[in-house]
Amino acid sequence: MSAILERLAAIVGPSHLLTAPTDTAPYCLDWRKRYQGKPLAVALPGSTAEVAALLQLAHAEKIPVVPQGGNTGLAGGATPDQSGKALLIALQRMNKLRAMDAANNSMTVEAGMTLAAAQTAAEQANRLFPLSLAAEGSCQIGGNLSTNAGGLAVLRYGTMRELALGLEAVLPDGRVLNALSGLRKDTTGFDVKQLFIGAEGTLGIITAATLKLFPRPTATATALVGVASAEAAIGWLSKLKDAFGDRLSTFEIIAKVCLDLVEQHIPGTRRPFITPWSILLELSDSGDAATLNERLVDWLGAQTLLDAVVAQSETERAALWQLRENISEAQAKDGISLKHDIALPASAIPAFIADADAALKAQFPSCRIVTFGHAGDGNLHYNLSYTRPGNVDLYDDEAKVNEIVYDAVYRHGGTLAAEHGIGQLKTQWLARYKDPVALQIMKTVKAALDPDNLMNPGKVLG
Amino acid sequence: MSAILERLAAIVGPSHLLTAPTDTAPYCLDWRKRYQGKPLAVALPGSTAEVAALLQLAHAEKIPVVPQGGNTGLAGGATPDQSGKALLIALQRMNKLRAMDAANNSMTVEAGMTLAAAQTAAEQANRLFPLSLAAEGSCQIGGNLSTNAGGLAVLRYGTMRELALGLEAVLPDGRVLNALSGLRKDTTGFDVKQLFIGAEGTLGIITAATLKLFPRPTATATALVGVASAEAAIGWLSKLKDAFGDRLSTFEIIAKVCLDLVEQHIPGTRRPFITPWSILLELSDSGDAATLNERLVDWLGAQTLLDAVVAQSETERAALWQLRENISEAQAKDGISLKHDIALPASAIPAFIADADAALKAQFPSCRIVTFGHAGDGNLHYNLSYTRPGNVDLYDDEAKVNEIVYDAVYRHGGTLAAEHGIGQLKTQWLARYKDPVALQIMKTVKAALDPDNLMNPGKVLG
Repeated sequence: MSAILERLAAIVGPSHLLTAPTDTAPYCLDWRKRYQGKPLAVALPGSTAEVAALLQLAHAEKIPVVPQGGNTGLAGGATPDQSGKALLIALQRMNKLRAMDAANNSMTVEAGMTLAAAQTAAEQANRLFPLSLAAEGSCQIGGNLSTNAGGLAVLRYGTMRELALGLEAVLPDGRVLNALSGLRKDTTGFDVKQLFIGAEGTLGIITAATLKLFPRPTATATALVGVASAEAAIGWLSKLKDAFGDRLSTFEIIAKVCLDLVEQHIPGTRRPFITPWSILLELSDSGDAATLNERLVDWLGAQTLLDAVVAQSETERAALWQLRENISEAQAKDGISLKHDIALPASAIPAFIADADAALKAQFPSCRIVTFGHAGDGNLHYNLSYTRPGNVDLYDDEAKVNEIVYDAVYRHGGTLAAEHGIGQLKTQWLARYKDPVALQIMKTVKAALDPDNLMNPGKVLG
Repeated sequence: MSAILERLAAIVGPSHLLTAPTDTAPYCLDWRKRYQGKPLAVALPGSTAEVAALLQLAHAEKIPVVPQGGNTGLAGGATPDQSGKALLIALQRMNKLRAMDAANNSMTVEAGMTLAAAQTAAEQANRLFPLSLAAEGSCQIGGNLSTNAGGLAVLRYGTMRELALGLEAVLPDGRVLNALSGLRKDTTGFDVKQLFIGAEGTLGIITAATLKLFPRPTATATALVGVASAEAAIGWLSKLKDAFGDRLSTFEIIAKVCLDLVEQHIPGTRRPFITPWSILLELSDSGDAATLNERLVDWLGAQTLLDAVVAQSETERAALWQLRENISEAQAKDGISLKHDIALPASAIPAFIADADAALKAQFPSCRIVTFGHAGDGNLHYNLSYTRPGNVDLYDDEAKVNEIVYDAVYRHGGTLAAEHGIGQLKTQWLARYKDPVALQIMKTVKAALDPDNLMNPGKVLG
């Protein structure tokens, strides 16, 4: 064992420094199996002090560092390069609840706690931690913060940035920032913790956070509504907000083709009606479920729509959600597709769809576009696929497809990374589409805080 | 006119460069009349391009710059020093609504628009811009962003930081950051706009912003509840959130002494009951007002409390609010008081009050402590006064009083600046109480973006 490895092992303990390829393998391959890296070693620190000691050593010896949470990222942000030079630091052992403050609606957790464990900790205090996404059983709070995670509850509760009251982070040279705080109001200068949220580990390592909690909703009402166009669907967002205010917690739009695929590929699918577009909407509230359901039924009765169904039981609710949740699996069964993690102002979604659809069909006449998403917060899944299974042409065209889609996204005020981040997957696109002065500021701050470019090199800014 | 003044006048037009003392006087004195400065000149730019040209020139000639909004700040953050060297840039001419996007619940406004005008612009589109504070007729959106303004609606809608979706700002060297955006989800690296929010103009000048809008509530229910202690009052915050969720839009706690003062000094005061502590609470919602009121009455009927009254008309509602709103005036009529803009985790408020009260009474046995505030977001008005009018001893003791109060605030996880910022009033306290690594990061970023320390020198970091 080299002298450096011995010093690293002395910090975390020999059993928490992994160097054998069989031990490090799970940390070296990203979730989508698109990136494979090779680290110097994988360190599993057990405390903020150990993270600080690791970064002090890495800083002194100019060792690049790759932080990793649950390794569920979709942009390769937590995978090291092939050089074998980087120290990978995985936070999984730092998974404790440090403090529950139900009366302040906040809790302080370590960065390696899984999102599901954080949800459970809140639940045990009769509170809701609302962040929710597909990987919640594995992804960790530190990764959620580093990618400013979004998911299903953004419409009502905001992204991870809005859910973070305070933060503890270790800087590239090992200094520890203590910005843990349960405060809702604090005007002591610009908010330094914001630098680390969404930075994907390029400015330091988040080790703990104070998170906002909410009352647990006691009533839910769910409906599927059929409308004639994307424009009509988006019009419903304002109507619903006016009628139900913050109770509107889900607003998903689904093009007909999505449910065609679900019906075709997922056995047992029950589709209540067929319309050009569908809206899956959910209200959640304190108080009584029957009253909320009744209010939704009454209100829907007074609207112009093609068709609608309101779930009358938990089974019916689950059936409506399965229509939405099975789209990705149905698509996968149908063949290859190129996916885009984009967001737009909700008002721009109809024009974007018309614009991007036309541009893609001009270039790829046989393509089929599968459009659905969390339209309530502007987040759209905009996926291209061929109907013929086994066709691989589209992968060859990926760069060209991305360019057409991103050009349309930016014409309509959108973003090429809604909730998956940049990682190593989109660095060249970020350089091309992001406001140049914003990029310059990011580089200036990066150079000031990490002059040797040791923190997660090659990610975000490339 | 000097060559520099001629070049400045050429940028904004001679009529928009003020140099005569009678013209510049209103910009040189802060709202509390505590700071009086003397600028080189006051420039009133009419566009972002003019702000950029001013900062380019200031950067090239090493002229310090003081940005100013509505000049209603309470910490001297917008007042220049006495040197006569700084260019004061006031944004009042940049007051346009650039874009209203009701369907996206957002609007883009220039930084010089008053908060009241922004509220009105939202209202005209049948939307709510929820930021609300005493100076709203004069204060400007740029100043609200630069101080991360709070006010009355934070409990439900968050501070200005949470209300800003996008930002346009001019950097110290004149580059223009275009981070205007109506997006709810965007993970293209760390969020550069956050640097300018709460920076009090020390990193650049905010020229425009895209702001979040909300549905307008259609129902309000207001109650005054009497309880036995601060601890009991804080316990009600969780109970109310559990019962009414996001509908809880106001939660103010008021110690008996406050209402004693109101009764004594404000003619026509009608006090429904006398209890050790009172809670002024308000629910707001979409839907029907009578239903909401009824729900509140029913719920209160099932609680343990000393006394309660629910407003049955707009007149009764106004009377309850006047009890709260007249506290400051009653205090002023009663004599000198030392005020503190502090916030704590809501759960820590009772222990803080006990702790700080004891420490102050040990040092100043005759002092009276007048405690009230937006306890729903942890923001407390914690004011000391003597009952004898004309007594000035307390001013002489201000530093000592602050130290006792701030020591207690930080023992309980609070902040010495909840919503007024640091300005020049609290720079020495910031240096003493803020986490040292947070201060170092602030200084590093400041040095990287403004190496000549030209932007609002002497403010925040001193």
